[in-house]
Amino acid sequence: MSAIRVPVVEKIFSTNDKIANQNRQNLSDKKVLAINLMASPGAGKTSFILATIKRLQDQFRIGVIEGDTAPVTIDADKIISAGMPAVQINTGGDCHLDASMMGDGLASLPLSELDLVIVENVGNLICPAAWDLGTHFNLLVASVPEGDDKPYKYPNIYRGLEILIINKVDLQPYVEFKMDYFRKGVEMLNPGLITFPVSCRTGEGMDAWIDWLSKKIIDFKKNS
Amino acid sequence: MSAIRVPVVEKIFSTNDKIANQNRQNLSDKKVLAINLMASPGAGKTSFILATIKRLQDQFRIGVIEGDTAPVTIDADKIISAGMPAVQINTGGDCHLDASMMGDGLASLPLSELDLVIVENVGNLICPAAWDLGTHFNLLVASVPEGDDKPYKYPNIYRGLEILIINKVDLQPYVEFKMDYFRKGVEMLNPGLITFPVSCRTGEGMDAWIDWLSKKIIDFKKNS
Repeated sequence: MSAIRVPVVEKIFSTNDKIANQNRQNLSDKKVLAINLMASPGAGKTSFILATIKRLQDQFRIGVIEGDTAPVTIDADKIISAGMPAVQINTGGDCHLDASMMGDGLASLPLSELDLVIVENVGNLICPAAWDLGTHFNLLVASVPEGDDKPYKYPNIYRGLEILIINKVDLQPYVEFKMDYFRKGVEMLNPGLITFPVSCRTGEGMDAWIDWLSKKIIDFKKNS
Repeated sequence: MSAIRVPVVEKIFSTNDKIANQNRQNLSDKKVLAINLMASPGAGKTSFILATIKRLQDQFRIGVIEGDTAPVTIDADKIISAGMPAVQINTGGDCHLDASMMGDGLASLPLSELDLVIVENVGNLICPAAWDLGTHFNLLVASVPEGDDKPYKYPNIYRGLEILIINKVDLQPYVEFKMDYFRKGVEMLNPGLITFPVSCRTGEGMDAWIDWLSKKIIDFKKNS
């Protein structure tokens, strides 16, 4: 079966990478930083985006592309209620966004008015890792109740990250999660990875993330 | 891109279904019941299997096939430590097991000595839904900290289930999870679905599941 699939997949990848580069160029031309936000289902992607918007809304304008496998607008509705532009992309059952879908999403956002675009990828630790969307960096929202063995089990997604968020740290007392074991796995795959342990629920750790991201947006505007 | 992909995928599906039927026949011939256990990463699949083994080990012999995308044997090692035969299948990055991999797994288990085979599929709410492995029923381990909107976002996997486990109910006081909203979504997709709310950590709810499963195994042995 692999012998049939591989050439098709390679062709799709090279087309994807071309469109991804166009998306990145389009964003950089308009001085809009873009983040590909990935996670397992229920790690708290949308809550994390909402918590980020809440803290940055007086300083920056943020657009969101919501990737979902089903035609539901639950997440996009939440972003719009928070006062920011959002577009929902239905992958039609596919387990990841691709650069072409991302291009469609960007076309529906008022890019020239934005400072940051956050792309909420489909909830999945496998498929999204292989697809460049044309963002500037990859961020994973891991979460404490998922367990401390995830880097060991889903190494590909950890290898391609620039930022790791460890969400739901407020649940540590109620679950078995050895932070040292988790971090050792991450360090093996992606040495020196920038990591923010946070709780979107209690707000713990969010200041450090927001400081880092604000600086990143300002630097990007200066240098792009 | 879809125009290229669809015929290949259809061919793979029909080959898969043929092998799946062979697997099911093989299991039924040997009077071994088989469960395809699916879940998001970190919902507690392995803990649920271990809790099930612990409660059934005096009555039944259980084999486990562990599907992982990476060449790690963390989960299989845990099952073997619990005194049951287990085999680890590395999908080589694929986001689901298929019937052929399941066939390889079955060939490595002492089937004639077993009453039940549990297949722990790759942690994913999208891909596994489309692949018949040749088990007798599909079970999903959902978990409270993942959030109550999962049926709405991942409808395909809920539609194909015979059993739903709602794990980590002990975490309900610490997270926002509206059980009514969750169950309403499930009922819409899969009316009357047999559901067991449990906590593998505290043991809550496990008796009802074990009673149900024990009866199922005994009935299956009688009638197959």
